Amino acid sequence: MRGFAMKRIGETGWVEKEAPKCGPLDAICRPLALAPCTSDIHTVYEGAVGERTDMILGHEAVGQVVEIGELVKDFKVGDVVLVPAITPDWGSLEAQRGFAMHSGGTLGGWKFSNFKDGVFSELFHVNEADANLALLPEGVDPVEAVMLSDMVPTGFHGAENAEVTYGEDVLVVGIGPVGLMAVKGSALKGAGRILAVGTRPNCVALAKEYGATDIISYKNGPIDEQVMKLTDGKGVDKVIIAGGNVDTFTEVVKVVKPGGIISNVNYLGSGEFIKIPRVEWGVGMGHIKIVGGLMPAGRMRTERLLNLLVNGRLDVSGMITHKFEGFDSLPEALELMRTKPKDLIKPVITIKYDE
Amino acid sequence: MRGFAMKRIGETGWVEKEAPKCGPLDAICRPLALAPCTSDIHTVYEGAVGERTDMILGHEAVGQVVEIGELVKDFKVGDVVLVPAITPDWGSLEAQRGFAMHSGGTLGGWKFSNFKDGVFSELFHVNEADANLALLPEGVDPVEAVMLSDMVPTGFHGAENAEVTYGEDVLVVGIGPVGLMAVKGSALKGAGRILAVGTRPNCVALAKEYGATDIISYKNGPIDEQVMKLTDGKGVDKVIIAGGNVDTFTEVVKVVKPGGIISNVNYLGSGEFIKIPRVEWGVGMGHIKIVGGLMPAGRMRTERLLNLLVNGRLDVSGMITHKFEGFDSLPEALELMRTKPKDLIKPVITIKYDE
Amino acid sequence: MRGFAMKRIGETGWVEKEAPKCGPLDAICRPLALAPCTSDIHTVYEGAVGERTDMILGHEAVGQVVEIGELVKDFKVGDVVLVPAITPDWGSLEAQRGFAMHSGGTLGGWKFSNFKDGVFSELFHVNEADANLALLPEGVDPVEAVMLSDMVPTGFHGAENAEVTYGEDVLVVGIGPVGLMAVKGSALKGAGRILAVGTRPNCVALAKEYGATDIISYKNGPIDEQVMKLTDGKGVDKVIIAGGNVDTFTEVVKVVKPGGIISNVNYLGSGEFIKIPRVEWGVGMGHIKIVGGLMPAGRMRTERLLNLLVNGRLDVSGMITHKFEGFDSLPEALELMRTKPKDLIKPVITIKYDE
Amino acid sequence: MRGFAMKRIGETGWVEKEAPKCGPLDAICRPLALAPCTSDIHTVYEGAVGERTDMILGHEAVGQVVEIGELVKDFKVGDVVLVPAITPDWGSLEAQRGFAMHSGGTLGGWKFSNFKDGVFSELFHVNEADANLALLPEGVDPVEAVMLSDMVPTGFHGAENAEVTYGEDVLVVGIGPVGLMAVKGSALKGAGRILAVGTRPNCVALAKEYGATDIISYKNGPIDEQVMKLTDGKGVDKVIIAGGNVDTFTEVVKVVKPGGIISNVNYLGSGEFIKIPRVEWGVGMGHIKIVGGLMPAGRMRTERLLNLLVNGRLDVSGMITHKFEGFDSLPEALELMRTKPKDLIKPVITIKYDE
Repeated sequence: MRGFAMKRIGETGWVEKEAPKCGPLDAICRPLALAPCTSDIHTVYEGAVGERTDMILGHEAVGQVVEIGELVKDFKVGDVVLVPAITPDWGSLEAQRGFAMHSGGTLGGWKFSNFKDGVFSELFHVNEADANLALLPEGVDPVEAVMLSDMVPTGFHGAENAEVTYGEDVLVVGIGPVGLMAVKGSALKGAGRILAVGTRPNCVALAKEYGATDIISYKNGPIDEQVMKLTDGKGVDKVIIAGGNVDTFTEVVKVVKPGGIISNVNYLGSGEFIKIPRVEWGVGMGHIKIVGGLMPAGRMRTERLLNLLVNGRLDVSGMITHKFEGFDSLPEALELMRTKPKDLIKPVITIKYDE
Repeated sequence: MRGFAMKRIGETGWVEKEAPKCGPLDAICRPLALAPCTSDIHTVYEGAVGERTDMILGHEAVGQVVEIGELVKDFKVGDVVLVPAITPDWGSLEAQRGFAMHSGGTLGGWKFSNFKDGVFSELFHVNEADANLALLPEGVDPVEAVMLSDMVPTGFHGAENAEVTYGEDVLVVGIGPVGLMAVKGSALKGAGRILAVGTRPNCVALAKEYGATDIISYKNGPIDEQVMKLTDGKGVDKVIIAGGNVDTFTEVVKVVKPGGIISNVNYLGSGEFIKIPRVEWGVGMGHIKIVGGLMPAGRMRTERLLNLLVNGRLDVSGMITHKFEGFDSLPEALELMRTKPKDLIKPVITIKYDE
Repeated sequence: MRGFAMKRIGETGWVEKEAPKCGPLDAICRPLALAPCTSDIHTVYEGAVGERTDMILGHEAVGQVVEIGELVKDFKVGDVVLVPAITPDWGSLEAQRGFAMHSGGTLGGWKFSNFKDGVFSELFHVNEADANLALLPEGVDPVEAVMLSDMVPTGFHGAENAEVTYGEDVLVVGIGPVGLMAVKGSALKGAGRILAVGTRPNCVALAKEYGATDIISYKNGPIDEQVMKLTDGKGVDKVIIAGGNVDTFTEVVKVVKPGGIISNVNYLGSGEFIKIPRVEWGVGMGHIKIVGGLMPAGRMRTERLLNLLVNGRLDVSGMITHKFEGFDSLPEALELMRTKPKDLIKPVITIKYDE
Repeated sequence: MRGFAMKRIGETGWVEKEAPKCGPLDAICRPLALAPCTSDIHTVYEGAVGERTDMILGHEAVGQVVEIGELVKDFKVGDVVLVPAITPDWGSLEAQRGFAMHSGGTLGGWKFSNFKDGVFSELFHVNEADANLALLPEGVDPVEAVMLSDMVPTGFHGAENAEVTYGEDVLVVGIGPVGLMAVKGSALKGAGRILAVGTRPNCVALAKEYGATDIISYKNGPIDEQVMKLTDGKGVDKVIIAGGNVDTFTEVVKVVKPGGIISNVNYLGSGEFIKIPRVEWGVGMGHIKIVGGLMPAGRMRTERLLNLLVNGRLDVSGMITHKFEGFDSLPEALELMRTKPKDLIKPVITIKYDE
């Protein structure tokens, strides 16, 4: 079995491995559509999750079941399935506490291309298939569906944790694919004004389509000053951080009303501390909640996101700027995530099989 | 001062009254746009709130401040304001418990055309002006804004109490103006499929514009059977009742998944009991929550709804099917709510002043 | 393998069956402490869950693991474990929606003595052992721990669904073992005044120990009148129904403040409808929430309840009024739940093994 | 009118002022019981809220109404009332958003000894009397009740924001009066194990009475290491910060499970930043919520806290270590809060009047 792997920090390449084994609750799938993620770049080139040897990359996939565990009830060989980036252990204490994404420990539900081989592989293994896979509804294009592995649920989770509600003003920092979905996720929770921070023209255009009412550019000065000006000194109800870095928090605390929420879905790859300014945080008593969370996953969640796609509430097609065909184009597609050409939002690779 | 009043149960007519007095926290307004409500019909012709003598009707208004209390800080004479149907006492124990609409007792925040003279009057009184009024933003048409007095907040509250979230399937019973706003309110909370029950062609068309994906007609058999068929026996996550009667509950309990919610915003005008079928309610242990609530109001809420209008998230124009000019057209407009011609959704009266 | 079974509706008796098989995620246990439940009586003598043939009864147990599935990680043969009455499928869609107790459908997590053989057996089967069992902490008496299978989590869930908070006034209807735990569960959520409805002297005494401040007897007139009198016409914030029948709802709606909650944990065994009085329910708009739910279970929850026991927050010893020794005393103990002698709250059977 | 004031940063003294005026919604009270607070010390000697000139100190009082506004309905001259430290404007946008304590802006509900003269005065002014005062129930000692002005609601709010629930393990940092009430507030929300950080022997003893199961001393090494050791490496579900400083956050992030909450009620008087360690915070995705909030107030809340006192759920007497008589003893009592003798928890001054 061939896969495209992180050979060590800073180096990628094809590896040859034994096919994964299928336990009684599991599924083995082959990929139909794959998408590389900025996380893959962090993992390989920044060593963000530490050293790995010959670990196959990738965690965004639509696949087809080729083998199925004997205790799996709802899926069978041949099924076309959406595979979420996060595949929790659903019986774990963390899942029972409502945080399945952290099953077994912080970020423990993130297995693909972290604790085990990812989906950039001729065959990949899915744990607890009944609980983690979702059948692709008829008529849904795998190329679009693969956006629901990670980009959509992560962006939407930003709006969820921000507890966005009718008519609230929301600031979204970052309008890469996750930020765009945070914008759309806010609009789908009834936000009023959505101020989005970003500069890339294609992303700006798409952010507006997804519901951004105001675009703020880093180039025009500190974000907080621009936000306060745009809101006549009132600030915003909620902030979703989907870009920037640890210093972004320091800036946005200044624009949140008392009782507001700062919701992070940005993987913070470096920096020792997130620094919350004491005075602007109400000397500790301003009721500004700060939270950050990995995307929720699971079959129920994924079916619901597909429900949005099927019923025309969500159109992800605009995010897919580059399409590739064939397993062999993986390196090229991944390289795009590293070089980030001006017109890139998200590339997708489709794989066809003769049968 | 002239007003159009309920003279007694079953009889309306013009009355002449002294102008209301302005307390230190209050405002006196004159109407710019008014809308009659089905509740006015219930009140007069069904005696739904009991006997009243010469009580001026109406609780949906955009007005202009003509007098202002000396403790009011944020409004002044001349301001054009949106007046919510519900005007709570914000210091009350109920408000502090989070239920301002019940200030002073169940439904206590509903004052206009219930406990005191309504807005179908040359002048009307607003308690706690700073807390209950919202300035009409520039460019907002009073004719549209008056939909935010009652129809929008009531319909949206149905979706709020149903705790609709991403990708859920929602059943909305009734597609009059409140039901239409329950459909839109569900879409604005990220519902997936929205099944709406109704038959009037103009309402059906508008329901689809607001986000209904499936239309169900009473004429084709029991609602519950149709819902179960449409959902392959799975039922729905949430139900919003915005029409029907006490018996509607009995029917819809059968289509809600365990953990689901039935949210009522329909004024139940008659019938002794709401009857919940024991077995379908999980012999008391099925986690199907049943709740019904009067719309929340207040300046903060109303400003947020205006925020949706201003930012293009909500378009109420389609609901306004009949427009009248002049205070004297009130009786004719109200009569429409009684006769309900086929093409009616909502009439609005505008009043102009020479100055 | 011998078990004490429901032979058919109305008849109990010993049955001889093959020992249950242990799947890869399961455990097979032998009982150390067992308690019969009023539900067992409903099941056998009222046919409340329908006809069953030779189904072994019982769902409250502390047991010892005698066989363990090869995929189970956290338990081993010999472990002494608390077995909750409800044993959900944790990967199910319902569990992912937050309602594991309804996995696979309404009440689907209730398996013992409902869909499969119960714990009144020389050996019983536990599905998803890692997720459903909890290790008995050292020093905890199995006789007390068995109260945590059903009585404690069910009563506490009443207070949970009632969302009891600091200083609220709570009415608890029924002070059998579940009602007593609803009283204690309310006190442990910071309730102020707790009004408890019941008459049996031992239960009354224990209710006071658990935190009841006022005792109301059915014998002194309608509950609602007594509550309104005791509260100077204000009513209560929350009601927990842990006794009575479908008619209890009709009565208690009248004493709940707007914004209040009626939380049912009583198995409603008969009656076609729960009837909610329309006017007292605020003509559908009084924000009185009505909910009823089966107890939550799972290892996390059960460990937390044990945490209360171990840290002295909860003392269940007062509820155990009758102790039996030996597997053969099961019929006698169960019979107590049917005849309900005056001094009964809860009987427990302990079983010892030579080793 | 005489009051004990902050004359400027670093200096206190008696001042003579005109008696406050009573607006239509207000009350003027004279003090019956007063308590100084550590905040008063921060204000005067650290200049924590900035410079103030001749501002009367104090925000913890039981008083007697001597003058009442003409729009006040529920209080009259002669009433003995509990006065919360925080007295919001209940019609404000912030109150309508659920954060009355920040009415008019962050911390805006904190008026006494901050924006206006405090309660260490022969007469003091209470805004919105109906909404902010609570009648002292018969039999409640003003000396005890004054603990409900600030210490109890602040400590309890720590447990509220931590969303403590049945059987959770909670770490409380600091066991001064607020920390002690955070311990008690956690126990009253059903916490399992409560680990409390502190060293003063009288506070340690009282913490145990209030429900602490483990006492941790700074003197024995870093808190996080001690907590991890005591919990076998599992950490705690929730942390309440009621002492320490900005650096405390950095330490406690390390002991919170994913999905946990850090809830601050400590006035952070100095330091530029709260620093959240990136890796331990799950690289931004660990679902560890950080929140800090000023106590909620209002008549409803205060009546509920009194309900706990009256029904014996809460005994504050142990916290009152020093009692003074007479208005003139104010300087001496306040000085205690500065010098903090070993046996001090909280001093109370009572004032008697000839009538």
